[in-house]
Amino acid sequence: MVYITPSSGVRRYGVSVMGIHIIAEFRGVDPKKISRVEELQVILDKIIIKSGLHVVSSKFHQFEPYGVSAIYLLSESHLSVHTWPEYSYMALDIFTCGDDNPALKAFELLIAEFQPKKVKKRIIRRDVIGEDKS
Amino acid sequence: MVYITPSSGVRRYGVSVMGIHIIAEFRGVDPKKISRVEELQVILDKIIIKSGLHVVSSKFHQFEPYGVSAIYLLSESHLSVHTWPEYSYMALDIFTCGDDNPALKAFELLIAEFQPKKVKKRIIRRDVIGEDKS
Repeated sequence: MVYITPSSGVRRYGVSVMGIHIIAEFRGVDPKKISRVEELQVILDKIIIKSGLHVVSSKFHQFEPYGVSAIYLLSESHLSVHTWPEYSYMALDIFTCGDDNPALKAFELLIAEFQPKKVKKRIIRRDVIGEDKS
Repeated sequence: MVYITPSSGVRRYGVSVMGIHIIAEFRGVDPKKISRVEELQVILDKIIIKSGLHVVSSKFHQFEPYGVSAIYLLSESHLSVHTWPEYSYMALDIFTCGDDNPALKAFELLIAEFQPKKVKKRIIRRDVIGEDKS
């Protein structure tokens, strides 16, 4: 995979523009880690940097009394997290175009960090160029 | 479905917390409508208001020379649009919890507005409370 440009804010993809969309449900997550923006943002920022994804901007919303929505716009597409601490539950989406590896790495890091008791993962293929084969 | 609170920024859901995630690919879209943030934002803002979804914040990114990423954080979860005008393609995600109708309405309005020549739609169920049955 050859990236067409290395600079942030410009789309990264190679000759084949195939998207991967990881949709995951984490259950049995420690509610303390997912209740407030302040804690969750620090965790997610670190994971995204480690995974090799490229953030163009991010947005967070604190629900009251608890619960967070977090969206990272990436040069590769987006990563979103919605948490319901009252159910020890978080919903994750990682949608990237180009190389699958950063998305898969981010997913591994999220598992390692939040240690969910139960994980449901679905992978959707999104083919940007031409017909969708999935 | 009884909403627990009507105010913006507070989560909206009833006794059953079932999420719907509409994942869609639009092909054959007029590139002019999806090239620049300025145009796309006006269109999307109108559709979201008409659909009955509740925006808590939004974020847009202009790719150069063209292409847009748009994310709306909703009290119901999120709506995202990524466009590749060079392929007349846009990738849509509408993930909401509670009543399915605003998400389905938003999807109908997106179809009516962008008039894609080809649509691929996938619906994923995301059950926040308890086990995921899907």
